[in-house]
Amino acid sequence: LNIGYHYIWDVHGCEESKISYEAFVSNLLYEIVGLLELSEVKSAFKQFQPKGVTGFILLEESHISIHTWPEHKFAAIDLFSCKPIDTSSLEAYLLQSLNATHITESSIKRGKAPVSYPK
Amino acid sequence: LNIGYHYIWDVHGCEESKISYEAFVSNLLYEIVGLLELSEVKSAFKQFQPKGVTGFILLEESHISIHTWPEHKFAAIDLFSCKPIDTSSLEAYLLQSLNATHITESSIKRGKAPVSYPK
Repeated sequence: LNIGYHYIWDVHGCEESKISYEAFVSNLLYEIVGLLELSEVKSAFKQFQPKGVTGFILLEESHISIHTWPEHKFAAIDLFSCKPIDTSSLEAYLLQSLNATHITESSIKRGKAPVSYPK
Repeated sequence: LNIGYHYIWDVHGCEESKISYEAFVSNLLYEIVGLLELSEVKSAFKQFQPKGVTGFILLEESHISIHTWPEHKFAAIDLFSCKPIDTSSLEAYLLQSLNATHITESSIKRGKAPVSYPK
C-alpha cells in the first residue's frame, strides 16, 4: 500500500515579523498550495497573542499546516499529499519568503506496512 | 530548540464501515483530543463520496488530523504537540476503536537544528 508522502519542514532563523501575524502566514500557506497545484477543501487559522500563528488547509490531497514561534524565529510546516508532488523548489521558496537561515526536511512514506498482519 | 514531537500513525486493516463516514471519524478524533487532554481551537471535516473522510482539529498545542481510505481499510493520523504528551495508550485505543490489525508509528522531534547557521 502506497498512500503518499508526508513532508515535514522545520524552518529556522525566520524573520520574526514574517511569522508573527496571520495575514502573512496564511498567504504563505496558500502560495504553497498554489505552487504545488493542490486543491483546498477548508481552512482554519488562529492568531496567538501577542504574536504567533497556527493554521491548517485541508486539501483534496490531504493537508498542509503551519505553526510559528516568532520568539524562536521558528516555523513548523507539514504537508501530506496522496498525489505525487515535486517539492524541490519549496526549500528555496521558504528560505526566501521567510528570510530564514536554515531548513530541516523530513519525509515519511505513508501506508507502508512492513508485513501482512493476520487479525 | 525543542518545540515538541510530531507523531504519525498509519492504521492498517481498519473495519471499513468505521472509517467511511464523518460522524464516526470526527468523534474518534475528538476522543483522542480528550484522552490526551489537548485543547481545540477550530476544526474542519469533509465527507468524500461515496466513502472516506478527511479532517483536522487545530489545537492550542498544534494539530491533529485524520485521512481515511476505506477501500484500503487504511487510516492516516498525525498529531503535532508542543506540549509533552503520553501516547502510550493510543495504539491500543486505535486498534480497538477501528477494529484494526496493525499500526505503524513514527515520531519526529520538531525544532531540532543540527548546527547554528550564520545568515
